[in-house]
Order: sequence, then C-alpha cells, then structure tokens
Amino acid sequence: MASTAVLDAIQELKKGHIVLVYDADGREEETDMVIASDFVTPAAIKILRKDAGGLICTTADTRIQKALGLPFLTELFLGMAEHYPVMRHLMPNDIPYDVKSAFGITINHRRTFTGITDDDRALTIHEFAQLAKRALTSEDGWAKNEFGKSFRAPGHVHLLNTTERILETRFGHTELATALVIMAGLVPSATVCEMMGDHGKELSKKDAIAYAREHGFAFLEGAEIIDAWRAHQMG
Amino acid sequence: MASTAVLDAIQELKKGHIVLVYDADGREEETDMVIASDFVTPAAIKILRKDAGGLICTTADTRIQKALGLPFLTELFLGMAEHYPVMRHLMPNDIPYDVKSAFGITINHRRTFTGITDDDRALTIHEFAQLAKRALTSEDGWAKNEFGKSFRAPGHVHLLNTTERILETRFGHTELATALVIMAGLVPSATVCEMMGDHGKELSKKDAIAYAREHGFAFLEGAEIIDAWRAHQMG
Repeated sequence: MASTAVLDAIQELKKGHIVLVYDADGREEETDMVIASDFVTPAAIKILRKDAGGLICTTADTRIQKALGLPFLTELFLGMAEHYPVMRHLMPNDIPYDVKSAFGITINHRRTFTGITDDDRALTIHEFAQLAKRALTSEDGWAKNEFGKSFRAPGHVHLLNTTERILETRFGHTELATALVIMAGLVPSATVCEMMGDHGKELSKKDAIAYAREHGFAFLEGAEIIDAWRAHQMG
Repeated sequence: MASTAVLDAIQELKKGHIVLVYDADGREEETDMVIASDFVTPAAIKILRKDAGGLICTTADTRIQKALGLPFLTELFLGMAEHYPVMRHLMPNDIPYDVKSAFGITINHRRTFTGITDDDRALTIHEFAQLAKRALTSEDGWAKNEFGKSFRAPGHVHLLNTTERILETRFGHTELATALVIMAGLVPSATVCEMMGDHGKELSKKDAIAYAREHGFAFLEGAEIIDAWRAHQMG
C-alpha cells in the first residue's frame, strides 16, 4: 500500500507540479526536483535551473528506450573503444554509490535554437514526452524514424535510461522518479534536477525539507517510493 | 593589435576572474561566462550555476584533444549507427547557427562522489586542466593512460572540442573562450556557461552588459576577440 505521502506526491505530479525526492541515507544522500516530462514548461525549467542547479535530465523507461532505440552512453563509448582506445580506460567502473551509470544520449528538438534556454529545454522535453506517448502505442519502426526527424543529438537535455526492472537492482533518482510517474499513470518519463547547496555540496536533507515546506512542494524519501512501487507491481 | 578591452579581459583571466563573452549579432546572440579552467574553484562554479544557468562546459583545443585522444560526440554517435541506427537519424545536420557541434564527451574526476556538486565539478575541471598542462609536454601515450586512470566518462562536466584552426571556420564560444586563454598564455582550456534570462530566452546583450558592470566583470564581443586572435596568429 502506498503511503499518504506517496499518494499526495502522485496527485501533485498529475497536476504538473514539482515534487522533491531524496534517495537514501548511505546512497547519494541527494534530493532531486522531479516533474512529469509531459508537463514541463519554461517556468518549470527556470525553477529547476535556479533553485536546484544540477543537470536537467529526462528519464526514459525500458519501453521508451526500446521504441526509440535509445542506447546508454556507456554502450556508445565502449563500442567505439577500438577507434578511441581512451574510451575503454574511462569506463565508469568505480561509481561510489552505484554499479551503473544511467546516462543516455543528449538531445535537442530540431525546432530549438541554441537548445539551452528555458523555452528550448522545455520544448525538447515536452516534445520528447509527446513522442514517447505515441511511440508506446505505435508500430515498431515509426517511432525511431520520427525521433530522428524531430530531434538532434548531441544536444542540451540529458536522457537517463532506467534499468530494465525498475527499483529491483538500481535505486537511483532515475528509477525513483520514473516509478512515480508510472504509478501516476503518466508517460513513463520524468524530468529531474539535483538540488545543490551553497557550501559546495548537495543540499542537505534538512534544507531540502525546509525548501519543500516553504514552497509547498511534496517531499519523499526513496524507501517510501520503493514500498509503493512493490505494492503497485503486485497489484 | 588587441583592443584595450581584450587586453583587460586577458589580465582578468590570468587572475582567475570570470569574463563575459557575447558571440555576435546574427549568430547565437548569447553571452557566456568564461573562466580559465586552470583557475576554476567551487565558488566559480556556484556563480556559473546560479548567475549564468546554462550547461557548465570545459573546452579543449586540438593539442589537448590529440594528447588525450578526445573524440567529438558526433563521431562516437555516428560510429555506433550500425548498432544503433537511430544515431544516424539524430545527426545534428541542421544546427541553426553553425555547421558543427562542439560537444565532446562528459567526464567526472574519479575522486568525485556524485560529480555534480560545486566541489565535484570544480575538482573535475581543475584536474582536467592540470592533466592537460602535463599532457602538452609529455610523451605520447602517457596522457591517454593517465586520463583514464584519473577520470571516468560519462560524467557531469561537458567537454567542448575546438575546431582545428581556431576562429577560422567556427566562431562559437568554444573557440572564442579558448582563444582568450591561449592569448593569456594559460592552459588552452576555458570553462564556459551560457547566461540565461528570466523570460525563457538567453540573457539579452543589454542585460549582460548591465550584469558585467554591476559585478565588475569584463565584457567582450566575439569580433574583438577574432581581431586580437588574428593579430596574435600573425605575430
């Protein structure tokens, strides 16, 4: 059974609001702003950019990855090691808090100009969510073709790929945020941004809770989402 | 001959200060914060993150690219098109303001934790500059090996590769910023971040000039840098 906090956060996501997600003590110990990609606006990007300050990234669950043919960056980097041997040496085999990098490719919608303004990043993310929505109900092949027609890579929005079975082997913000939008019945893509503190480090959990209270944002811990997700998968 | 404005900006860069560079009317029409990578600190990253708001990127001139074996992202993406056909369709062949993307790989220093905090991004960039400095005077092979030992990819700092002959075919912030640090006699790597406005678009030139005046930062236009660079190349 999902806790009241998770149910409330799901309602907030359905309204297009931002919610805050802290992963876990002993993992990154970091809070990310999370919003459903379907509802991203320039105003939301501005909040992520100014009040969170990390990288603005957009997640894709395995179904979207398959429909669009989205690789992990590590696959592209390692795949080119024959031509660029340094790519093998740079492999992220020592990430302190996890076994695997979630980074996918970076994209811009082709109608963006520089790709980096609030208007441009919102356009890229919103259009990505629209394409993902159609891709999940279309014949194989259409979506990959349409993806290349509408987007270019590299760009200014980072895609993050979830692991195949969400929240079973990896418990990062990529999986936590995507599980939330799936439980909300939305397009399985969330847009996330790490919250920075002003002392060189991530915003502390205490300060993230205070920020959430001040701005009326829901605040969740990873464990609550994992419990709700397990109940959702069973039910 | 370099203008007084360019000479002043070069002095500022040598002191580790940020300078502002507007590319050109009719190109991106965007102002980037620029700092020599050698002098990047957590405090500088905080200013880039909070007052500029774009992607924090670190440039590498052709000598660094060769010494470290750094590819362009488009090369990696296109090179993997046989395995991921969508990568061919996503090629950025329609960038509105230029012919070529400067994006290189993303990196984190292996001593970073999440990679995204001000402390972590400053560590990655500062160490990259230290490695680049040694790489330019070391035997071939050493630097590539050391690069993979000390850094992982993908990460949270974007590398930007200059074109081979700087400011001859491409006139982007990547080339403008790198030309400045080279003329300053510093490691040929600059760290840049696009300045965003609060109306969804880039900060206007007028507002960038006002910000520069308010904060005591030098402000340059691309054309002044191109003139100084040509004189520098002749001399």
